Formats: sequence, C-alpha cells, structure tokens
Amino acid sequence: MKQRYEIWVLGGDLRQVKLAQLLQEEGYLVRVYGMELRPKAETLPDREEWNRIEEADCVLLPLPAEGAGGMLYAPLSQHRVKASCIVERMRPGQLLCGGKLSEELRDRAQRRDVRVEDYLTREEFAVKNAVPTAEGAIQIAMEEMGCTLCGTRAMVIGYGRIGKVLAHRLQGLGANVTVTARRCSDLAWIEAFGYHGIRTEQIGHEIQNYPLVFNTVPMQVLNQDVLASLPPECLVLDLAGGSGGTDFAAAERLGIKAIWARGLPGKVAPTTAGEILHQTIHHMLQEVEV
Amino acid sequence: MKQRYEIWVLGGDLRQVKLAQLLQEEGYLVRVYGMELRPKAETLPDREEWNRIEEADCVLLPLPAEGAGGMLYAPLSQHRVKASCIVERMRPGQLLCGGKLSEELRDRAQRRDVRVEDYLTREEFAVKNAVPTAEGAIQIAMEEMGCTLCGTRAMVIGYGRIGKVLAHRLQGLGANVTVTARRCSDLAWIEAFGYHGIRTEQIGHEIQNYPLVFNTVPMQVLNQDVLASLPPECLVLDLAGGSGGTDFAAAERLGIKAIWARGLPGKVAPTTAGEILHQTIHHMLQEVEV
Amino acid sequence: MKQRYEIWVLGGDLRQVKLAQLLQEEGYLVRVYGMELRPKAETLPDREEWNRIEEADCVLLPLPAEGAGGMLYAPLSQHRVKASCIVERMRPGQLLCGGKLSEELRDRAQRRDVRVEDYLTREEFAVKNAVPTAEGAIQIAMEEMGCTLCGTRAMVIGYGRIGKVLAHRLQGLGANVTVTARRCSDLAWIEAFGYHGIRTEQIGHEIQNYPLVFNTVPMQVLNQDVLASLPPECLVLDLAGGSGGTDFAAAERLGIKAIWARGLPGKVAPTTAGEILHQTIHHMLQEVEV
Amino acid sequence: MKQRYEIWVLGGDLRQVKLAQLLQEEGYLVRVYGMELRPKAETLPDREEWNRIEEADCVLLPLPAEGAGGMLYAPLSQHRVKASCIVERMRPGQLLCGGKLSEELRDRAQRRDVRVEDYLTREEFAVKNAVPTAEGAIQIAMEEMGCTLCGTRAMVIGYGRIGKVLAHRLQGLGANVTVTARRCSDLAWIEAFGYHGIRTEQIGHEIQNYPLVFNTVPMQVLNQDVLASLPPECLVLDLAGGSGGTDFAAAERLGIKAIWARGLPGKVAPTTAGEILHQTIHHMLQEVEV
Repeated sequence: MKQRYEIWVLGGDLRQVKLAQLLQEEGYLVRVYGMELRPKAETLPDREEWNRIEEADCVLLPLPAEGAGGMLYAPLSQHRVKASCIVERMRPGQLLCGGKLSEELRDRAQRRDVRVEDYLTREEFAVKNAVPTAEGAIQIAMEEMGCTLCGTRAMVIGYGRIGKVLAHRLQGLGANVTVTARRCSDLAWIEAFGYHGIRTEQIGHEIQNYPLVFNTVPMQVLNQDVLASLPPECLVLDLAGGSGGTDFAAAERLGIKAIWARGLPGKVAPTTAGEILHQTIHHMLQEVEV
Repeated sequence: MKQRYEIWVLGGDLRQVKLAQLLQEEGYLVRVYGMELRPKAETLPDREEWNRIEEADCVLLPLPAEGAGGMLYAPLSQHRVKASCIVERMRPGQLLCGGKLSEELRDRAQRRDVRVEDYLTREEFAVKNAVPTAEGAIQIAMEEMGCTLCGTRAMVIGYGRIGKVLAHRLQGLGANVTVTARRCSDLAWIEAFGYHGIRTEQIGHEIQNYPLVFNTVPMQVLNQDVLASLPPECLVLDLAGGSGGTDFAAAERLGIKAIWARGLPGKVAPTTAGEILHQTIHHMLQEVEV
Repeated sequence: MKQRYEIWVLGGDLRQVKLAQLLQEEGYLVRVYGMELRPKAETLPDREEWNRIEEADCVLLPLPAEGAGGMLYAPLSQHRVKASCIVERMRPGQLLCGGKLSEELRDRAQRRDVRVEDYLTREEFAVKNAVPTAEGAIQIAMEEMGCTLCGTRAMVIGYGRIGKVLAHRLQGLGANVTVTARRCSDLAWIEAFGYHGIRTEQIGHEIQNYPLVFNTVPMQVLNQDVLASLPPECLVLDLAGGSGGTDFAAAERLGIKAIWARGLPGKVAPTTAGEILHQTIHHMLQEVEV
Repeated sequence: MKQRYEIWVLGGDLRQVKLAQLLQEEGYLVRVYGMELRPKAETLPDREEWNRIEEADCVLLPLPAEGAGGMLYAPLSQHRVKASCIVERMRPGQLLCGGKLSEELRDRAQRRDVRVEDYLTREEFAVKNAVPTAEGAIQIAMEEMGCTLCGTRAMVIGYGRIGKVLAHRLQGLGANVTVTARRCSDLAWIEAFGYHGIRTEQIGHEIQNYPLVFNTVPMQVLNQDVLASLPPECLVLDLAGGSGGTDFAAAERLGIKAIWARGLPGKVAPTTAGEILHQTIHHMLQEVEV
C-alpha cells in the first residue's frame, strides 16, 4: 500500500534543486531526474530514467517547462528528453505542474486526464517573484553605476507588481523616486506612498533629468524619441516581460546603456526563487486536497 | 455671451468650503449657497437663493449630498432645502456632482437629462481618502493609548486601500505590524512590504497578543468570540464602511474600548479632504470635456 | 534577616505609578507613598507615612523630584511634604534616585553619605524619551492641522536627539522633511538619511515655504524676524528644553499659532514614560551592583 | 597678475579624476598630473611635469596619498614619483590636501610652512563615505547570496557611522535587522529606529540564527569561537577599518565565507566618492578663506 505522496521533480536550474530539497524536508517522497550536474550532490534520490513516471502522484516540470525544440528545460543535466514525451507517459489523475506550459503540453495532458497547473497563472507566484526581481534590478544598477543610489533621481515606469516593490526599495535606499502610471487611481497610490508621480504619457518631457530609468511596462514606452531625450551616462534597465519596452537597437545607436534584465529571480536569488516555487506548489497541493 | 464656466457649490462642511475656494482660485466662476456659517467669510460670493440654479454649468452637492429626511446636508447653514427640489430646478445638459447620491436623486436627474457623477464611484477618490483616514486612525490611537506606537504590536485586519496605507504608516512609526488577508496573493504583498502576515480566518488564535487592533473589513470579523480573546487594555479602532466589522455591544459587555471611527477625512483633515474633492472634480470635468 | 531589596517609590504622576508596578512585577519589595489618588487602586502597598524610609534600600523620587517651594512633586496625592525632609531621614549607604534633583537636595544627600543618581544625567534616558516626545509632537500636529502630514512640507530645526527621531517618523508618514543643522557633519547625516538639509543660519531665507515647523534647539532661533517670514496658517511646535527657541510674544503679535510643548512623554504616553524610567533605574541598579 | 585660484590634482584613481572635473566646472584653474591613463581623455589639462608645482595655490594628493615605498598613489599613471619629493618642491603659504598623509609628509610640509589638511580628519567626510560603503556592502551581499535580503535575518555589529547607515538601508530592503552595540544609549537609539538590539558581548549566543553578518567594529569581535557558532552557508562581510574584526584564518578553516571589503567607496561608486572629496575640499577651502 502506498504510504507517502510521491513527487517527481524534473529538469530545471538551481531553483528546481532547492524546490526538491524543500519538498523532501517537508516529508514528501521525492524523486529527481535531469539535474545530476547540480553543484553539490545532496541526498536527493536521482532517477536514472524518467519512464516510471506513472509511479508519481505529482510531476513538477521547471520554469520554463520547455527549452528550444520542446525539450525539457534541463541546464543541469546531460540527458535530453522531449517534454511532450514525459506527458505522454503520465496516467489519468496525476497532477502535472510547470511554468509557461505550452498549449500543446496542456492539450496532451488534458487528453490523458492529467490535471494541469501552471505557476504563472498564480497571482501570489507573480507577486512573490517581484521581490527578487526588484532586488536583482537594484544589484545591477549598483554594479553598473559609478554613483550611489542614495541621492540619485530614479524613474520607475509602470506601477504594477514590479513597479510597486521596486519603488519601495529604491526609496528605502535614499533614491529620489518618480513613478509613472496611466490611471488616476494608480497616481493616487503613488502619491500616497510618497513618490513623485507623473503620467506615463508625459515621460518624454521629464526623462531628461533621470540618470536611472527602470521600465516595467511590456509596451515600447522607451522608443527612439524618448531615448534621445535621456542624459548621456544614463542607465536603462528593462524588466518588462514579453519583448520588453525598450527599442534596444535605437539605444545602441544613441550610445545609451540599456540592459534587458530577464529571469532575474532564477539568476540573482535561486534559493529564494526555489522557495517561492515551493510555497506556490504548497498552495496548489492544498487546493487539490492532497 | 457666457465667458466663464460657472460652478455652484451647495451645502456641506469645511471640505466643501475649501473646494469652493480652490475652484475659484483656479478661475471658475463660483457661487456658493448653504455655507454662510463658515468660520471666516472668505470672498466667496454667497447666494441668498438657490433657485436661479439654471445659470450654473455644474452643480456640486456635498458628501454626503443628503442628510436626514432627504434635506441637503448643510451643517454650516441655517437654510433648509430638500436635495430633490434642487435637482428639480436643474435644466438638461447641466452636470450634477455629489457624494453618496441616492437612487431617487439620480433618477430625477436623469429624467431631466442632467448628467450625474458620484465622487464615491471614482477609484482615485477612494485611494486618496485612505491617507487622511489612516492618519486620523493614528491620531486617535495616539490620543487613546498610554504607550507609544513605537514598539507596540498592532494588527491591521484587511489589506484593501485603508489597510495598505495604514500599515505603511504604522511601520514608519516603529510599530510591530501584522496584517491579515484572505487571499494568498494579498499575503504575498504583505510579506513583500515587510509586515507579518496572517490569514484573516486565523485572527482568533493570534489576537490575544495585540494591544492595538484596526479593522478595515466591512464584515463582522471582530465578533464576540474574537473580542473575548483580546487582552485587557486593548484598543479597537473600526475603520470599515457599512455597518463596521465589530460587535460593539459585545465589546462594551466585555469592557473593551472599541471606537467606530467614521468619516475621518472630513473630521481630521478637512483641508486635505477638500483638496481631494477638488482633484476628483477636476478629473471629472476633464473627462466631460469642459 | 532582610530577604528582598526594598524600593520606596514616592510621589509623581502616572509614570511613577507605572514604575512602581513594574518594579513589583520584577520581584522587588515595593512601598509607595504620595500617589494614593491614582486612577485604579492596584495592589501596590501604600504607606501612610514616609518616615520609616530608613527601611528602604533605594528611594525613588519622581521626575521632577520637586514642585513649587521644594515640595515633593506629587500631583496624585493630598499629602504635602518637603523633598529635603525626606532626604534628611535617609541613612548612609541608601541609594536615592530622582529627576532634576536640585543642588540643595544633592548636597544634603551627599552630606548624609547617601548615593545619588539623577535620571536626567543618563544618556539612554534622554534617547528613549525622544520617542514619546516625537510621537507627541506628531499627535499635536495632527490635531491642530486641517491637512494631512502626508505631502506637507515640514521643517525640523536641529538634529539632536529629538530632531533625529522626529524627522524619521515624519518621513515615514509621507511628509516632505527638511532638517536644519549647524555642523557640516550633521548636514552629512541629514542627507545620508534622505532628508533635505539646510544650515540653521539660513532658515530665514527658506522658512516661508513651510506650513509646519518643529523647533528642537534651546536658543531663540525663531525670533521675530524669522517668525515674520512664516506663511499664515503656519503651525510652530517648540519642543526645545530650557526656555524654548521661539519668541512666543512675537508669534502672538503676528497671529502665528505657536505651541510650546513641554514634558510630552509624561502627558501623551505615561505608560511608556514609566517603562523608560524603569529601564533606566534597572541599569542604575545593575551598575551599583545590587 | 594672478587671476584665478590654481589647483593641482595629482595621482589617484577615478575619484581623483572626478574631483578634478568638478573643480574645473566650478571655475578653478585646474592642472592634473599622474592620471594620464584615465578612461576618457576629458578636457583636463595634463601636465607633463609636476615640478612647476610652486605655481599652484593648492595641491591635492589622492586618498591614500602614498602607495608602497612612499610613492605617490597613481594607479592611472605610468609615471612614478615619491610623494615626499612633491612636498619638497612646495613653497610657504601653499595649501596641501590629501588622504591618510603620513607623519613624514606632514612634517616636511610644516617645515616648509605649507598648510596641511587631511580628508580623513574631517567628520563630514567620514559620514558621507558611510553611504557608498553601505551600498557597496549591500551590493556584495546581493551578489554572494542565493536568497533575497527581503526576509533575511541580518546582523550588523556596531552602531557607528557605517552601522547606522547600513542598518537603515537593510531595513528599507525588508531585511530583519539586528544591531549590536555596547553602550546603553546606542541600544536606545537602535530601538528608537525600530531594529532589534543586542549587546555586542552577547553576539556569541545569538549569532547562530543569522545567515548574514556585517562587522563594522575594528576589534576582533568575530573570533574563532563566535565564527564556530555561525550557521553553514553564512556570509560574513567585514567593513571595519584597521585590521578588521574577523579572524579570517579561522573562517577559512571553518569553511565560512568571510569577505574583507575595504575601500568600497572608491571601488563601487567612484563618481560619488569623487563628489564627496570635492564637497570636503570645498569646505576646507571655505575655511581657509580662499
């Protein structure tokens, strides 16, 4: 008789390693596959093969689940396997979790009566990841700038999740923080928290005074015209999803240092990012009433 | 030919006086009625009668528009007039703004082709008012408590507008802040801003350690059972709308000091509250393309 | 044989009551005299007479120790006794603590080989009291102003203990904080903490933009000339010791609201003020190796 | 006739370059020597030779003034010259400023009636440099740790200049901050600013719970015994002057990552560090009544 809930953790980077450790510490029966090149060989039980995956109660794919060509994203492994092959071996009633699951994967899973959950659809996952993203952005700004954040005029474009968390920390470090938003109610929030607020439509008129600009809006706000107004020596950090909000080609032509910082949580704080995955999966498992 | 946009400001308390002054300074032609008992007789042009109201382009009723018996809320006046009578004298195309407009008033206005706007439906109005509400709550806490907020364990129930703004300020004053929420994503926000977070469902288990409790949730969270767990000498401040979130009768039986603090912006910061009205009306006028 | 260290707590206001309670809870044998009119009759053992004071190991006079005419400061009592009479009954080796002890009292004590400690000479006592002083100042500002502190330009004159603690809290509440100081190094501190800094000598040139001014410097900084530059509706709160730093007569002539806020800890936060006394006495007793 | 005050800026790193630029922008006649390898050839007038130094009104040596063997510290130059030779060419009445001037240099200068000022003796210089030091420490912590500062328990040993500025910023980033101090009054300050405070003598008992430790005390506080109590994966950053406060050999034996971070302002924020030099020299020049 099966005693313990069994979770298979497949592929991924250091976040996925941390996740597997935390689940094991919590008492789950954990099997890992596709992370055999991880720095220290913790006591995680590596599986040579993933094909007895039907033994699992829950299968955790990484974030993102797939790399190029639909292969399981597994930078810490020398094995290569198609993500879809894994799903094809799953049995009805199993739970499949992963990040940025493609429509194809979701379809296959549903056809096999496998329940599917994507981390990215969880609001709390996005909120929690705003913290390592903001810290990562601050780290890069510190590394790239010759002056301190204290006393620097910093503009944060957009007051969504990352904008809120980033503005708060920049202010805590003594920067002079301006935040842009489009909605009146967001501008009201910005003032209630003590930042200077301007309408996003107006940034072209103000941006020339800002040696540090963070973009969080996934639309091309920092187009050639706006970039041309920036002071020389300005640093632009684009944290927006999708295809970013900066015309990087124009920035290069204009000699402006613009950095597209993507996937910061996994890069700058893999331990925290793994804990966030773990907390999210914890909530998911509670909700499916394990 | 009519040169300037004419605004009539009727009734209300000190906020409405401030509002009339700000509109006049901005260049509007302002007429006031029903605030003749205001502290200083500023240069606002009082109208003896309200019945030439058809001359106005815009009519501003106070917040709330009506007092008992449907009378215009006008604590700074000895005149008494039914709010509905005013509306009945308006002409098609005029703009009527007010706060907490009753369904009857709205209906009458619409039947006369008068455009109607209620401040309370504006998100930015609610956000901006969270600031004087939070400051007012802090002022009352300081007045009522024999100890400093610095070092005090304070619980904020609910992480909506008031909860967000209040928790931020309590932390700035050195209190030890716990915030409760029901949604996972709100708890993620609470942690991202450095507060201790607990689920609202759990407050019964934790509340015995909090000498200061602010409620912002308009549901009876602080029922008899929860109140019975509070430490003696505890102070409860209920800031929730509707009928509040505290069983005040039970609090009295139990000897717990519970204060129902309503309408704080107008009471503790009438100047700011008037400015907020003004900013909101400014946005409204922009949107109706004056 | 004497088992427990015996402390007599004489006179004083609610702080002294709180102090006596805390010492009793800590296990000391406590006797109180001269506070029989306190709100609730806690289980403190009142003494009818103070003249068996030689039984005490330590005698705690209040802050201040003496009121008018050298009488023990005892607003919660109907007994009247000269502070010097009490000292004259003490015996060699006893410890006498009090606040603002007059030279005469100190001399008498020393002549009798009584060890004397004054709270006011303890740096940590002054630092700790800066917190209730700052909170009290904020409470008064909130009560007196019609606008919120959030968004208000506030000037803090002086960056000593109260200036440091007050500026920090005003910033936490969203005020726009300027601090003045005379030394270059203090101005460096002011900038490091994110405030706007100006030289105290320059306040005459800047003060016209500040509707809220806190003085913490015990020299007449706010003289008639400077006061005349203040905007109407300005609020001045003087928190300085000695004879304050404001020409109150000139303020009245000029129609400026200036409040001399003295002894705030005992007034706005007697419980905290009592705890601070207790912590300070605790350190004193440790140092005399009880 | 001499029209403009002439300043010679010799040697140094990027800070010294920034300093020369700022002085030139301010209107001084600036000559530079010993920084010809600087990144961009700004319009600073390089001198081929330093031996017409008697033309200067003021000579600015870098921080530190001397490198190994008493040579002018000049990492951006291929010239090598003894600092003492420069002083020997100076004439009576000139002003010599520099950082960490050796006793020998001071003596020589005084014998020639050259006025001497050392940046390091200026309190405001030390306070201002605490900001880039604290930011640099935070940058290193972010780079080295796999988790976010938000939510991390961080201990700051010592509440001097760096301790004060660092604790403030760590709290602004959401870390859980404990500060240690030896004096009661410093512990009172620590609590007034909302940190957890413990006595430096007690760190051995508490440190096992801190994955991040910053030392600012120039005495061996982090000796072998204390280091042995640290949790594995702990990061120690030593920011103390002198020979630091960490037994680095013991740390290595114990497998604890301990980093001795020295001279952070010049490394992480040379522009700001140059501005600080400039502000300090500005004050010095004002005081010698140029």
